[in-house]
Amino acid sequence: MTRLWDRGEPVDAAVLRLTAGRDPELDLQLVPWDCLASAAHARMLERIGVLAATECRALESELVELAAEARAGTFTIAIEDEDGHTAIEQRLVERLGAAGRKIHTGRSRNDQVLAALRLWGRDRILLQLERLADVLDLLVELAAEQRETTMPGYSHTRQAMPTTMGHVLGAWGEGLLDGAPWLREAFAHLNRSPLGSASGFGVPLGIDRGEVARLLGFDSVQHNTLAVQNDRGKSEYLALAAAASVGTDLGRLAADLIMWSSDEVGFVRLRAAITTGSSLMPQKRNPDLLELIRAGAARLRSRPAEVGGLYGGLGGGYHRDLQLTKQPFLEGMQELCDLLAGTAVALRGLEVDAERCLAALLPSTGATDALFSRVAAGEPFRDAYRKAAGVASAAAEPELASPEAWRARSGDGAPGDRALLALLERRHEVRAWVSERRQHLAAATAWFADRDRPRTGNPRRYNPSDAEPRA
Amino acid sequence: MTRLWDRGEPVDAAVLRLTAGRDPELDLQLVPWDCLASAAHARMLERIGVLAATECRALESELVELAAEARAGTFTIAIEDEDGHTAIEQRLVERLGAAGRKIHTGRSRNDQVLAALRLWGRDRILLQLERLADVLDLLVELAAEQRETTMPGYSHTRQAMPTTMGHVLGAWGEGLLDGAPWLREAFAHLNRSPLGSASGFGVPLGIDRGEVARLLGFDSVQHNTLAVQNDRGKSEYLALAAAASVGTDLGRLAADLIMWSSDEVGFVRLRAAITTGSSLMPQKRNPDLLELIRAGAARLRSRPAEVGGLYGGLGGGYHRDLQLTKQPFLEGMQELCDLLAGTAVALRGLEVDAERCLAALLPSTGATDALFSRVAAGEPFRDAYRKAAGVASAAAEPELASPEAWRARSGDGAPGDRALLALLERRHEVRAWVSERRQHLAAATAWFADRDRPRTGNPRRYNPSDAEPRA
Amino acid sequence: MTRLWDRGEPVDAAVLRLTAGRDPELDLQLVPWDCLASAAHARMLERIGVLAATECRALESELVELAAEARAGTFTIAIEDEDGHTAIEQRLVERLGAAGRKIHTGRSRNDQVLAALRLWGRDRILLQLERLADVLDLLVELAAEQRETTMPGYSHTRQAMPTTMGHVLGAWGEGLLDGAPWLREAFAHLNRSPLGSASGFGVPLGIDRGEVARLLGFDSVQHNTLAVQNDRGKSEYLALAAAASVGTDLGRLAADLIMWSSDEVGFVRLRAAITTGSSLMPQKRNPDLLELIRAGAARLRSRPAEVGGLYGGLGGGYHRDLQLTKQPFLEGMQELCDLLAGTAVALRGLEVDAERCLAALLPSTGATDALFSRVAAGEPFRDAYRKAAGVASAAAEPELASPEAWRARSGDGAPGDRALLALLERRHEVRAWVSERRQHLAAATAWFADRDRPRTGNPRRYNPSDAEPRA
Amino acid sequence: MTRLWDRGEPVDAAVLRLTAGRDPELDLQLVPWDCLASAAHARMLERIGVLAATECRALESELVELAAEARAGTFTIAIEDEDGHTAIEQRLVERLGAAGRKIHTGRSRNDQVLAALRLWGRDRILLQLERLADVLDLLVELAAEQRETTMPGYSHTRQAMPTTMGHVLGAWGEGLLDGAPWLREAFAHLNRSPLGSASGFGVPLGIDRGEVARLLGFDSVQHNTLAVQNDRGKSEYLALAAAASVGTDLGRLAADLIMWSSDEVGFVRLRAAITTGSSLMPQKRNPDLLELIRAGAARLRSRPAEVGGLYGGLGGGYHRDLQLTKQPFLEGMQELCDLLAGTAVALRGLEVDAERCLAALLPSTGATDALFSRVAAGEPFRDAYRKAAGVASAAAEPELASPEAWRARSGDGAPGDRALLALLERRHEVRAWVSERRQHLAAATAWFADRDRPRTGNPRRYNPSDAEPRA
Repeated sequence: MTRLWDRGEPVDAAVLRLTAGRDPELDLQLVPWDCLASAAHARMLERIGVLAATECRALESELVELAAEARAGTFTIAIEDEDGHTAIEQRLVERLGAAGRKIHTGRSRNDQVLAALRLWGRDRILLQLERLADVLDLLVELAAEQRETTMPGYSHTRQAMPTTMGHVLGAWGEGLLDGAPWLREAFAHLNRSPLGSASGFGVPLGIDRGEVARLLGFDSVQHNTLAVQNDRGKSEYLALAAAASVGTDLGRLAADLIMWSSDEVGFVRLRAAITTGSSLMPQKRNPDLLELIRAGAARLRSRPAEVGGLYGGLGGGYHRDLQLTKQPFLEGMQELCDLLAGTAVALRGLEVDAERCLAALLPSTGATDALFSRVAAGEPFRDAYRKAAGVASAAAEPELASPEAWRARSGDGAPGDRALLALLERRHEVRAWVSERRQHLAAATAWFADRDRPRTGNPRRYNPSDAEPRA
Repeated sequence: MTRLWDRGEPVDAAVLRLTAGRDPELDLQLVPWDCLASAAHARMLERIGVLAATECRALESELVELAAEARAGTFTIAIEDEDGHTAIEQRLVERLGAAGRKIHTGRSRNDQVLAALRLWGRDRILLQLERLADVLDLLVELAAEQRETTMPGYSHTRQAMPTTMGHVLGAWGEGLLDGAPWLREAFAHLNRSPLGSASGFGVPLGIDRGEVARLLGFDSVQHNTLAVQNDRGKSEYLALAAAASVGTDLGRLAADLIMWSSDEVGFVRLRAAITTGSSLMPQKRNPDLLELIRAGAARLRSRPAEVGGLYGGLGGGYHRDLQLTKQPFLEGMQELCDLLAGTAVALRGLEVDAERCLAALLPSTGATDALFSRVAAGEPFRDAYRKAAGVASAAAEPELASPEAWRARSGDGAPGDRALLALLERRHEVRAWVSERRQHLAAATAWFADRDRPRTGNPRRYNPSDAEPRA
Repeated sequence: MTRLWDRGEPVDAAVLRLTAGRDPELDLQLVPWDCLASAAHARMLERIGVLAATECRALESELVELAAEARAGTFTIAIEDEDGHTAIEQRLVERLGAAGRKIHTGRSRNDQVLAALRLWGRDRILLQLERLADVLDLLVELAAEQRETTMPGYSHTRQAMPTTMGHVLGAWGEGLLDGAPWLREAFAHLNRSPLGSASGFGVPLGIDRGEVARLLGFDSVQHNTLAVQNDRGKSEYLALAAAASVGTDLGRLAADLIMWSSDEVGFVRLRAAITTGSSLMPQKRNPDLLELIRAGAARLRSRPAEVGGLYGGLGGGYHRDLQLTKQPFLEGMQELCDLLAGTAVALRGLEVDAERCLAALLPSTGATDALFSRVAAGEPFRDAYRKAAGVASAAAEPELASPEAWRARSGDGAPGDRALLALLERRHEVRAWVSERRQHLAAATAWFADRDRPRTGNPRRYNPSDAEPRA
Repeated sequence: MTRLWDRGEPVDAAVLRLTAGRDPELDLQLVPWDCLASAAHARMLERIGVLAATECRALESELVELAAEARAGTFTIAIEDEDGHTAIEQRLVERLGAAGRKIHTGRSRNDQVLAALRLWGRDRILLQLERLADVLDLLVELAAEQRETTMPGYSHTRQAMPTTMGHVLGAWGEGLLDGAPWLREAFAHLNRSPLGSASGFGVPLGIDRGEVARLLGFDSVQHNTLAVQNDRGKSEYLALAAAASVGTDLGRLAADLIMWSSDEVGFVRLRAAITTGSSLMPQKRNPDLLELIRAGAARLRSRPAEVGGLYGGLGGGYHRDLQLTKQPFLEGMQELCDLLAGTAVALRGLEVDAERCLAALLPSTGATDALFSRVAAGEPFRDAYRKAAGVASAAAEPELASPEAWRARSGDGAPGDRALLALLERRHEVRAWVSERRQHLAAATAWFADRDRPRTGNPRRYNPSDAEPRA
C-alpha cells in the first residue's frame, strides 16, 4: 500500500504525473463497480466465517452509499489514495474500523481492479450494442425510404454502375450487424470472475470463488489464478479491436456522407444542427460532426495498438506497465458508444436530394447493364466486354437501363428489396440479445441494487450501469 | 483487364514494384482456391443456362489440373497477367476458347479475389486451431509432469509467492484456450459467400448465389452486394487481431522461457536443437527460436494496424488501396501457424531443472502464506499485513509454508490439480470443433476434389488445403 | 464561431464528448502562448493601421493579464466557448469592446491554434533537451564511478563477454546523445510562423507576416499559406517520433535496470524511495517507477501512429479530424519530459553491488578473450574458433582474462576510458544549444514579458514557458 | 555459426520460415555493401598485421567479383548459409583458404550486418532525395504553369475561398521540401561506422576503427561498442518515420488528385497511361496508380510502428528479435523511392481542365474577400463577419472578387508569385546537397570501385549504389 510519493519527501510533479497519471480521475468510473464487487466479496467472506454477519451488513451499506456518491460525483479520490481501490478501503476503515480492515482478506488490488474493469466493460459493451441497434434502426428506415432513389454506385471513387441510396445505406447496415458477434465475444471474454486470483497465485484461505461469481452475474470463474493476470491487456486488446472495427464502419460511412454533402456532389444536405461555422469565412457550413466521427474512428483504431505495445512484450504475471492499459480501455470503449450516438444524430440530420442523385448519373455508367443484354443473347462475356470497351465513349454511350432492369441484379444480394428484407429481420437479434443479458445481470445483482430501495425509492439510481461518464 | 504496364510503353521498375508488388508471388497460394471457386461458379452458370454442360465439364477439368499445378509449383503468374485471377482466365481462354471467355460472366475480379481469400482464410484458421490444440496438448502434458515442481511465482519481475511450474504452464494453456473462440469468430465471419456481388452492385443476370455458396461449403450468402466490398479490410483486420492476440500469448511464454533459461535463473535448459551459436563467441548457446517467437508475435501485432491504416480511411466500395491488405493477411495468418509450430518445437526442447527452481525460492517469498496463519486466527487482514510489513526482513524472515499448505490456496483456481483438471477437459473442445468443420467442408467440396481421383489415385493431393506455402 | 451545441437545442452528452472532447482542459496549456501570439498579431495590426495605438496597448495589457491568469489556474474555458481561442476573443470583446472585435482581423482559428501549438511545442522541446542533459550528466557520472565494476556483458539475454558497468551505462548515454539532433530538427520544423495563413488561403489585407514572426522569435515565415495547413499533423507526427525514439532508450534502460535489480540478478539495488509495496504481499518491493518508465515509453511509441492515422488519409487543407492530433501532441511531448525526469529520479535511486556483478561472471564468458590469444599467435580466426567451440565446456573452461587485457579491446570504442571521454566532451553540446536558444527566444519576446514587470516585480512570472502543466 | 536447422535432423517447414524467413532473398541487396565493408575491414587487418599483403589483395579481388555477381543476380544465398554474411565468408574460405578463415578476425556478424545496412541505407536516402528533387521540379513547373488557374480552395471538404491551382500545388512542393532535412538527419544518423564493435563488447585486438570508417566514407566512428548494438532498431525507426512523413505528403497529394479527377469534380483528367480498367465494367478508367500511392503511404506509416514494436520492449544489447527489423527497413526505405517515382509518373499524366476549375467556384466562396472590403473601410472584423453570416445566402450572395484583388492576400504567403518564387529558389538545395554527398562517397570508396576498372572498362558497374532492387 506504499506509494511512490508516500515517503515523506517532496515529490517531483513529473514523477507524480508519471506514476499516478490520470488514475484518480479515471477510477471514478470504476468505483461503483468496485463497490458492487467488494460487497459480493464481503458476502462470501461472511459465508466462510471471516466476517461476522453484522460486519458484512455494515460493509454492504457503506458500499451502496459509496457507489451512489461516486455516481453523484460527490466521492473523490485523493492523490494520497493513489487509486480508487485504496480510497474505498480507506473509507471503509475510517467508518467501520475492524470490518474495514478485513475487507481486503483474500484478495489483492490485482484481482480487485480486474473485477471492476470487467464489470464496467461488460456494461459498456451492452451500451454499445444498444446504440448499435439504434443506428441500425435509423439506417434501415432511411434505406427503406430511399430504396427508389437512384444514384451512381462507386468504385475507385469513380461511377461504376447505377444503384439506389437504399442499397448503399443497407450495405452499411449489414456491415454494422457483422460487428455485433465480435462485441458479444468481447462480452463473453470479460464475463468471467477474476476474484480470488489475488496477485496471480491465489490466497491460502478456503474462499468460495464460485459464490462471488454468481453474486456478480459472471458466466463462470476464470480458473487458473495466474491466467487471470495474464489476461490483463489481452481482453482489452480484443475488446478494443472489436470496437475499432465497428467504429471504422461508422467512420467510413461518415467519409461517404462528407463527400455526398459536398458542394460538388450534393446527394444529401446536412441540417444546420450538425454543421459548424468558421471564425473567418461567414458562408461556411462545415460537417464537423461527421469529420469527428471519421477521426474518432481513426483514434479508436490506434487503441488496440497502444494496448498491444504495453502488454505484448512482457513475460507472464502482473507488471505495473499493465496499468497504462486502463486509459485506452476506458476511453476507447466509451468512444465507440459516443461514435454510435453521434452517428445517430448525424443520420437524423440528413436531407436527401433525390434529384441531384439521379442527375449525377453519367450515361456511361449504364455500360455494364447494357453489355449484359448481349450476354443474354448468347455472346461470350469477354467478347461482349471487349467490344464495349473498344467503342469510343462519346460516340456510342450506352443508355441507362431502366431501374426495373438493374434492380433484378444478382438474386438475393440485389440492390432491391430482398437484401433489405433480410436486414430488417436480422437487426432485431441485437436488441433481443442485449435485453436478455441486461435482465439476467439485473436479476443476479439485485441483492446489491435492492438494498437501498427503501431509502431512496428509486432502485435504478443504484444500478452502476447508470454511471454515464460525465462530459 | 488493362494494366498500368500494358500500354506499349516501357515501364519504370519502381512503378511496376508499386503496382504489381508481390502479387504474382502471393497469389500463387490463392490459385487452388480460386480454381475451386471458379469451378463452383461454372456449375452455377451451367445450371442457369450460360454454359453448356460440355463447357462446364471442360472448365472443371482444366481448373482441377490448374489447381494441382499451382500446388505442385509448376504454375506461375507472369507479370503480364498482373494477378492470379487474370492468369487463370487467360489459361482457360487459351485452352478452351469460348468456354474460357464465358467464365467471367456474372462476376468481377472483386468478388473473385474475395472468394479465394475467404476460402484460403478459413482453411488457415482451421490449421491455426489444429496447431493450437497441439501446443495445448504439449503444455498440458508438461504442466501435469511439473505439477510438483515448486518455483517462485513472480509479479513485477520480483518473487511474489511460491507456486509450481505446472501452475505457470497451465496458465498459458488456459490463455491459449481463450483465443480459440476468437479464431472461430473469424472463421464464421469469413465463411460467407461473396460470389455474385461483382464490383459491389451485382450483375444483371439471374444467377443463383445460394447454389454457389452451397458448393463451396459457405455457411450463407453475404446478402447486400455492396456490404461484401465494404467488408474487405474489415474481416482481415478482425482475423489478424484475433491471431495477434494468440500470437502474443506465445510471445510472452517465449519471453518467460528466455528468462527461465538464462544463466542467472536456470529453471529450464534448452536442448541444443533449439539454440544457435555466435560467429564470434565460441561458448554461446543463444535462444534464437524463442526470440523469434517473441519477435514474430510483435510483428503479428503490427499487422492489424497495417490493415486498419489501409482500409479505415476510405469511403465505401472498392478502392485499389484494399489490395495492399492481401499481403499482411496472407503473411500474418500464416505467421500464427508458424508461431504455433515453433512453440511446439520449443516446448519439446525444454529440460526442467527442478532443483534450481526450488533453490531459487527466497524465504521472504513465503511471507503472504505465513501472514494468513494470523488471519486464520482471527486477526483483521490489514492489521496482520501491517505487522508483517513492519518486521525487519533479515531478522524475522518467514519460513516457507509447506507445499501442501499453499497448494490449498483459492479453491478451484488453486495452483493444484483442480485448475489443471478443468483445462484437461476443455482442451478437447478445440480439436473436436475443427474436426467437425473439416469434415463438413470436405463433404461440401467433394465434387471438386473427387473429380481427379481416377487420374491420380490420390484424392488428398487435390484438396487445396494441402497447399502448405513453401518455406 | 458557431458550435455544434449552440443551436438552442438540448445536446446529447455523447455528442458533446465527441465534439468538445478534452479541449477545454487541454487548451488551458495553450492559452499563455495564444496570448503572446495574439499580442504580436495586435502589434502588427497597429502597424498596418487596423488598430489604433490605444487599442493595441489595451489588448496587450489584457492579454498579459489573461496569460498570467491561465498560468495561475484562475482562467477557465467554458464549454460554451468551445475552445481557448474563442474564450480569449470573448474576454477581449467583453472588456475592451471594439478593440476586441478587431483582434481576429486577418487571422483564422486555424493559424491561431497553429501558432499556439508551435510556441508551446518549441518550449517543450527545449525542456526535453534540458532534461535529457540532466539524465546525461547522471549517466556519465555513474558510468565514470562504475568504470572499474566488472560485470557480464549480454547478448540474447545470455552472458557474452566481460564488460564494465561504466561501459553499459555509457552506451545508454551515447544513445541519448543521438536523440538530441532529432529533437533539434523537430524544434526547427516547428519554429516557423504560421500566422497570416488564416484558413489556408491568406487574407485580403496587407498584413506583415515577417513582423509577427520576428516578435515571436520564429526563425522564419512559413511561406505558402496552404502549406501551413498541410503541415498540421505532420509536424506533430515527426516531433512525436523523435520523442518516442528518445523515450524508447529510457524504456530500454529501465528494462535493464528492472532485470539488474531482480532477486536473481542483483547487480543493483533500488532505494526504497523508488519502489512500492503490494496490497497483499508484505515483503514486496516493486520497481514501479522503472516499470512505468518502460510502459510510458511504449505509450509514447503509440502516439506517432495515432497522429499518422488521423492526418495521413486526408486530402490537403484543414479538416476537423486534425483537431484530434492536439491531445497526442500535448500529452506525448509532455510524456517525454516526464520520462526524463523520472529516469533522473531512478538513476539517483540506484545502489550498485559490485561484488554481485563480479561474482555473476561465468568462466565461459571469457572464451572469446581467450580465443584471441591464439589469433594473436597467428592462427586463423575461424580455426581457433572451431577448436574453442569444440572443447567440452566443463572440462576446459577458459579463465577470465584480466580486466587490463580486455579493457584494451577495439581501440576507441573500447569499454575503457576513451569512449567515456568522448561522451564527456559531447554531452555539453546539448545544454549549450538549449541555452543559446532560450536566450534568443527570451530576447525576442521580451516586449511581451517585460510589460508586466512594474506591476509584479517578477518578470519571469510572465514567461509562458513557466507554464508547467499541473499534475 | 551453427544454425537451427544444422543439427542433422529434418526441419519443420514452419520453423524454417520462422527462423530464416525471407533473409536469403532480402540479404541479396546487402551483399554488394557487405563486400565493400569486408574489403575495408581486410585492408585494416593488413595494416595491423593480421593479414599478409597478398592475402588482403586476394580477398579484395574476390570481394569485388562477388559484389558484381550479386548485382548481376548470379550470386545466391543457400538456405544452408542462413544469411548473406555467412555465405560471403563461406565463399572466401572455399576460394582462398586461410585468408578466408581470417576475414572474420575482429568482427562479429552483429557489426557486419550493421555496416551493410548503414551503407545500403545511406545510399537509399540519397536516392530518395534525388527522387524528391525530381518530384519537386515537376510540382514547381506545374504550379508555375497553373498559377493563373482559378479554382476553389477547400477546407473541411467544402469550398472556402478562391485560390489557384498553382498555389495548391506549390503548397505540396513546400511540404516536400520540409521533409528533406529529416531525410538528411536519417543519413547523418546512419553515416557512422559500427565496425569493430563486434557483438557489443569490442574485440581484444588492436584494430583501427577510424581507418575502416575512412575507407567507407563514414563521417565518424560510433564510439561506445554497446551503443552500436543499442542503435539497432532505433536508426531504422527514425529513418522510416522520416520516410513515412514524406510518403504521407505524397499519399495526401494522391488523395487530392483522385478527388480532382473524379467524374463529379473534374479539375484534372488522368491520361490513359496512369489508369486501369475493370474486368467487368467496360467504361471504367480507374486511378489505380494514385490509389496505390495513397495506400503505399499508409503502409509506409505502419513500418515505424512495426519496428518500434520489435525493438522497443527489449533491454540493451543484441537480441535475435532485431533481425525482424531488416525487412521493414529494406522494404520501407525502398517504398519511399517507389512512391516518389510513381508520383513523378502521375504528375506527368495530368491534364488540367482550367474551365471546370473556374466554373466550380460558387459565388458564396467569395464571401470572405467581400467581407474584407468592409473591414478596409474601418468596420471591426467581428461586426462585419456577423452581418455577412446573418445575410440569407441566396438573396445576397457576394460576387467573386477579381483575381487581382485576392491575389494580394497575406503578403509573402500569398497565392501569388512570391511563395512560388521562394520555392523555386529553395528547391535546388536538395539536389546540391545530394550531389555533394554522392561525390564525397564516391571519392572515399574509389579504392574499391576502381580495382576492377582494367578488367571491365566500366567502373560504374562496381558502385554498389547501382544495385537497384529488382522488381
